[in-house]
Amino acid sequence: MAQSVKKVVLAYSGGLDTSIIVRWLQENYGCEIVTFTADIGQGEEVEPARSKALAMGIKPEEIFIEDLREEFVRDYVFPMFRANTIYEGEYLLGTSIARPLIAKRLIEIANETGADAISHGATGKGNDQVRFELGAYALKPGVKVIAPWREWDMNSREALMQYAEKHNIPVDFKKAGKKSPYSMDANLLHISYEGGPLEDPWFEAEEDMWRWSVSPETAPDKPTYVEITFQGGDPVALDGQCMPASAILETLNKLGGANGIGRLDLVENRYVGMKSRGCYETPGGTILLPAHRAIESLTLDREVAHLKDSLMPKYAELVYNGYWWSPERKMMQQMIDASQAFVNGTVRMKLYKGAATVAGRKSDDSLFDARIATFDDDGGAYNQKDAEGFIKLNALRMRIAAVKGR
Amino acid sequence: MAQSVKKVVLAYSGGLDTSIIVRWLQENYGCEIVTFTADIGQGEEVEPARSKALAMGIKPEEIFIEDLREEFVRDYVFPMFRANTIYEGEYLLGTSIARPLIAKRLIEIANETGADAISHGATGKGNDQVRFELGAYALKPGVKVIAPWREWDMNSREALMQYAEKHNIPVDFKKAGKKSPYSMDANLLHISYEGGPLEDPWFEAEEDMWRWSVSPETAPDKPTYVEITFQGGDPVALDGQCMPASAILETLNKLGGANGIGRLDLVENRYVGMKSRGCYETPGGTILLPAHRAIESLTLDREVAHLKDSLMPKYAELVYNGYWWSPERKMMQQMIDASQAFVNGTVRMKLYKGAATVAGRKSDDSLFDARIATFDDDGGAYNQKDAEGFIKLNALRMRIAAVKGR
Amino acid sequence: MAQSVKKVVLAYSGGLDTSIIVRWLQENYGCEIVTFTADIGQGEEVEPARSKALAMGIKPEEIFIEDLREEFVRDYVFPMFRANTIYEGEYLLGTSIARPLIAKRLIEIANETGADAISHGATGKGNDQVRFELGAYALKPGVKVIAPWREWDMNSREALMQYAEKHNIPVDFKKAGKKSPYSMDANLLHISYEGGPLEDPWFEAEEDMWRWSVSPETAPDKPTYVEITFQGGDPVALDGQCMPASAILETLNKLGGANGIGRLDLVENRYVGMKSRGCYETPGGTILLPAHRAIESLTLDREVAHLKDSLMPKYAELVYNGYWWSPERKMMQQMIDASQAFVNGTVRMKLYKGAATVAGRKSDDSLFDARIATFDDDGGAYNQKDAEGFIKLNALRMRIAAVKGR
Amino acid sequence: MAQSVKKVVLAYSGGLDTSIIVRWLQENYGCEIVTFTADIGQGEEVEPARSKALAMGIKPEEIFIEDLREEFVRDYVFPMFRANTIYEGEYLLGTSIARPLIAKRLIEIANETGADAISHGATGKGNDQVRFELGAYALKPGVKVIAPWREWDMNSREALMQYAEKHNIPVDFKKAGKKSPYSMDANLLHISYEGGPLEDPWFEAEEDMWRWSVSPETAPDKPTYVEITFQGGDPVALDGQCMPASAILETLNKLGGANGIGRLDLVENRYVGMKSRGCYETPGGTILLPAHRAIESLTLDREVAHLKDSLMPKYAELVYNGYWWSPERKMMQQMIDASQAFVNGTVRMKLYKGAATVAGRKSDDSLFDARIATFDDDGGAYNQKDAEGFIKLNALRMRIAAVKGR
Repeated sequence: MAQSVKKVVLAYSGGLDTSIIVRWLQENYGCEIVTFTADIGQGEEVEPARSKALAMGIKPEEIFIEDLREEFVRDYVFPMFRANTIYEGEYLLGTSIARPLIAKRLIEIANETGADAISHGATGKGNDQVRFELGAYALKPGVKVIAPWREWDMNSREALMQYAEKHNIPVDFKKAGKKSPYSMDANLLHISYEGGPLEDPWFEAEEDMWRWSVSPETAPDKPTYVEITFQGGDPVALDGQCMPASAILETLNKLGGANGIGRLDLVENRYVGMKSRGCYETPGGTILLPAHRAIESLTLDREVAHLKDSLMPKYAELVYNGYWWSPERKMMQQMIDASQAFVNGTVRMKLYKGAATVAGRKSDDSLFDARIATFDDDGGAYNQKDAEGFIKLNALRMRIAAVKGR
Repeated sequence: MAQSVKKVVLAYSGGLDTSIIVRWLQENYGCEIVTFTADIGQGEEVEPARSKALAMGIKPEEIFIEDLREEFVRDYVFPMFRANTIYEGEYLLGTSIARPLIAKRLIEIANETGADAISHGATGKGNDQVRFELGAYALKPGVKVIAPWREWDMNSREALMQYAEKHNIPVDFKKAGKKSPYSMDANLLHISYEGGPLEDPWFEAEEDMWRWSVSPETAPDKPTYVEITFQGGDPVALDGQCMPASAILETLNKLGGANGIGRLDLVENRYVGMKSRGCYETPGGTILLPAHRAIESLTLDREVAHLKDSLMPKYAELVYNGYWWSPERKMMQQMIDASQAFVNGTVRMKLYKGAATVAGRKSDDSLFDARIATFDDDGGAYNQKDAEGFIKLNALRMRIAAVKGR
Repeated sequence: MAQSVKKVVLAYSGGLDTSIIVRWLQENYGCEIVTFTADIGQGEEVEPARSKALAMGIKPEEIFIEDLREEFVRDYVFPMFRANTIYEGEYLLGTSIARPLIAKRLIEIANETGADAISHGATGKGNDQVRFELGAYALKPGVKVIAPWREWDMNSREALMQYAEKHNIPVDFKKAGKKSPYSMDANLLHISYEGGPLEDPWFEAEEDMWRWSVSPETAPDKPTYVEITFQGGDPVALDGQCMPASAILETLNKLGGANGIGRLDLVENRYVGMKSRGCYETPGGTILLPAHRAIESLTLDREVAHLKDSLMPKYAELVYNGYWWSPERKMMQQMIDASQAFVNGTVRMKLYKGAATVAGRKSDDSLFDARIATFDDDGGAYNQKDAEGFIKLNALRMRIAAVKGR
Repeated sequence: MAQSVKKVVLAYSGGLDTSIIVRWLQENYGCEIVTFTADIGQGEEVEPARSKALAMGIKPEEIFIEDLREEFVRDYVFPMFRANTIYEGEYLLGTSIARPLIAKRLIEIANETGADAISHGATGKGNDQVRFELGAYALKPGVKVIAPWREWDMNSREALMQYAEKHNIPVDFKKAGKKSPYSMDANLLHISYEGGPLEDPWFEAEEDMWRWSVSPETAPDKPTYVEITFQGGDPVALDGQCMPASAILETLNKLGGANGIGRLDLVENRYVGMKSRGCYETPGGTILLPAHRAIESLTLDREVAHLKDSLMPKYAELVYNGYWWSPERKMMQQMIDASQAFVNGTVRMKLYKGAATVAGRKSDDSLFDARIATFDDDGGAYNQKDAEGFIKLNALRMRIAAVKGR
């Protein structure tokens, strides 16, 4: 708390925790506070944050409430999907990919309002603090960062409630009463659950934890089909109907959720060095990922696809660890984007009781040539005798080694 | 056909195609023929191959019929699964992984019987010729290879039937009559379908093509749970019951197939340069793969896991392209195997209408430490203040760059 | 020789071998011939090729003689140097990088002159045939390729001489008499030597083999300094004087050669599967490579530099193997080029008796910040206490593992 | 200074700085101190550290002075050289590779003496603190670490001298008087220089800074040749004479130094996020590296070599960043070591005025086959016609793409 701060932009959800942070900042830093509340598709009203902020003494002109859903999907989610990005073989990075956008807006608002600091409600154990702060430092190197969870000594919900009571911060007891045992985070790409009973990795999540999807068991008994059209690697239409990026993801979330698609239960490695167990619902993303791979399977050159695959884990690591605004992520993005020029066409997905599977794919830019691949007579398009030389020379180094007794 | 051959070991299935090859070799090379028929779990009797071979004049002592199922799973499938191997993000390499074993046995039998050549029934357009021959050359550099499909000019089924008739090769007309429109290949890991109507990648495979699994729609309405125990990275028991490798895979195939699990429809890039469309059923493998990842998620160090992930695409490429017996595959295997020493524990999988999902995982070698990861008070196990320095130094290079106006 | 060819563009040096090819093509293919002779800095007059071609019956308008030196260095050599490209830790790819340009011009000339084939004088054992032909096929997929060395049965110099005599091809006996025992190739980037006594890898090349450089022993006793200025990753000036790309390389070749710089003796792995021994002189390149690294060391972000380093071997492999015109090389180039925007500044190189060493580097885009790196008091620019948290969190996963007894 | 420490093992050089640390630890932690002084070839007597430690009140049985030279070269330097390890294209990691050994011995001594902490004299800005501490934490997860430079507020030499005077710590004024302006570190692999005038990267190091090598200009006018014999990837003999690892490196240091070999001047990226400029002398290493590559060039399979090359930057990063004792470094080492089984043979190096160049290499395990590579008639060992099919199939994907207009 040594640092002196003039004005701080806080990532403010309007909930209890960040309301406590407002008061705590006022009390401990005696600085002006700018609140920033974004709709990134978390499924909660953002407008109520305004009156709450006002009630805590924030100046009306320093309350920022914004709908970032389209920007979020178009400039963050879709670019990431171009790389078929998955962290540790499973996680679709729903939380990770939202942070750089928030960091960017925090800094832009700091620049607009003349603030010298930013603040957020992420704990000192998680990845989100890293993602917020790496982004902030990369975009405004002199910015100060206040991370209350790393500073204060309130380590339990009780301590927070006491603080709220003491400082007259209104607690929505209805909400607080039925408080979920899970720590949750949501945006248009996913909703996540951590903590509580999930801290035992052998424990299977209870059915009523999941909020965005029905269970596969209760999903419809008939499959749903949806056709996704891609252009330059990004989805642009569903069943032939063009839509903005956010509408595509929103629609797929509904379709997926209704068919029990997108639940994930995993143990992941945090950047700060520990393992943690998380459950995720990513209905739309879980449909998009195989669909994107399917359209690439028709339209991408083999070696381009393999090069992308070999770099994907590194790219995923960068996104997960919070390096969206780093030069190396931007450099990799250049290469990934360059690969997508011909990734055009349509994929037909079958959604059924928890599974999203590819049922067909077509493209004017297809490199699939049935004439060559066919088991039937190909009329000379491919000379089978070429294979002998191909194999012989590929084997040469191993033959020489074998002759030498290796 | 210029090369002179004394004795050739043929990978002989007992079916029409390889029976024609026997005759064609006799006719065109005038050499002795050794037949080799292996049970690798393709689901067809191998013993009938003996009488067929005898009928075509093969010496009794040069007819080799072997049950290789355990060796196949133990020494090829499971080592490959240690790397979480998937080709092009989707394909579990069911065909690829069987070829090196066949190649090895062909060469060993050639050495035993004094043969100077091997032969196989793979076409000149596919990957299998490469896998057979690279293996053969690596293991016996001076071996001659006869690939009849690259030599003869019979390009259609009709031409083959004519040849069979002309040479009195018995055709099982019952079988030939209901000939599947698909080119198929099967072993304990999978069954594959190519060709025919699948040559249109927009066409959805018909329900009656699939042979190993019921459709998700007709699978049971209640989930099945199975617990898989791993030791040193390999599955060793199901629901607490120890089993040989092949029995584990066989059992999982049945459980998976009964629950509609393991169907895959994709377009892949062949090593010989073309794209091809294939459908696969890999019920057991589709259960094992996420199970193995789940037990690794508890027991592997983060950076070890990431290193494995970054090398996996290369490893998959080597297996797919036929380089099992190459020094680079063996070198990578050393590293992969070294990583598995502590990959011990049990994973609970839920099988339901096409999806195999992780429901729990536990291990005595778990590196998951709920005490540290918890959102609750951790009693000082982790000092949140450390995160500040961690972030600051990780941000330093980006801050310097930003100060310089980048 | 089965294929029918109407008109072929031949990469024609004007020397004996390609003159024999002209006659052999006329004799065996009975087709029209277009000759293409390029000056890429090999150090021999190209104009004499015209009269030789005319004498062999080539139409004047189908004799192409071009000075490609600037294009070669600007569009091939320098882009490759942006990646600090070295094959197998040593080879600067002097031969490899010239082939794609020749391939491109062969195809462009084929398109202009209505030719349906190309031909070259590379043997069937080397890399150059692959580089020419992969380029040709990538740029004109239906082109026919005639590789006489793979077709004819002349396997020795004597056979060629006999053919020349029989067909009245003028042999420059003065030249032929003092025929070097080495197979050589030269362009502005390097000259190479293979074959003859070099086929024993224990044999040290004789002094009089080397043509472009004095020996370190006879080089001047005083060092020469040269300052190289880079812009966007490419050298643009020497000692402050702006020059075209080719002039820069030519000047550095002279400076390097005069100081005994750029000799290299190695055993390399050819793409066709064998090892071969080669000696190379690359005076300018041997100066440029550490100079480029030095300017990058000041101006590139660490992770960008490391990412480049990790991909360089793959990039080098692509160039060596002949995949310049492949989509994967072009995709990687996008990323490499994107990294060079701020690679500006000047490097001072010391040239002395065989060694080119960095003596200083400076840049307005430097990320080196002496204020932070200093051992002296930095006035708070860097907080040493941050290092504790940085180390603690980086160690966390290893500590947890150690606690578990690993 | 909050932590309570019972007994601390200090990496003690016997010099002024670490003597001050002894006193400062006594004063500030009031704990017992164990001193550990190692001879790793830094070229200074270690025995005098005993009397100094005694004089400062260290118990005789808690003064550890050890000759670790052989262990250092055999178990750290040579394993690293097996990977042809270079950081950022230039740095041979001389400082980095010594730290894990020191860390290991600090922890072993802590375990022997019942100490609960370790301490070292590395600053909070450098890499060495990270290397010491990551090693310590990995080997003894509960160990406490005291890094005085991160705790105290003495930021200048003057402050240290005052402290020494005030606490009666004997200062060797003769030495202090002619104090080098450089911060130096030395061991059998190298000596390094940082700071002072080197903080300007345009400044060329003065001749009298260098301590281990004559300048190329004053080196002998005649080259020196040395033959290095490798076994399993490690050098085992010089000019046919078997020697222990440390003797080999020592001898090569002398030979190299006498010929002006091994000077290096670079700007590197520290793990803590800043760039720094360093000069290094690594005479023996600069000879060994190309020698090892040369013997590998004869004996390693191509793809094994390329795989090693592609992973080397990652391996170098791990060593540089201090992750020697991490599971991922150990895992990579397994693969690297596995590759070296046949890396046997002899390399002849020419040492002349700053350059170490390969003059010849031979091996009973050579995979170089002159019979195949020759430009002369090879008697059928290689069928040039195979190259056509090899090229055609490698080109196929690009031809298909070109047909589609890409």
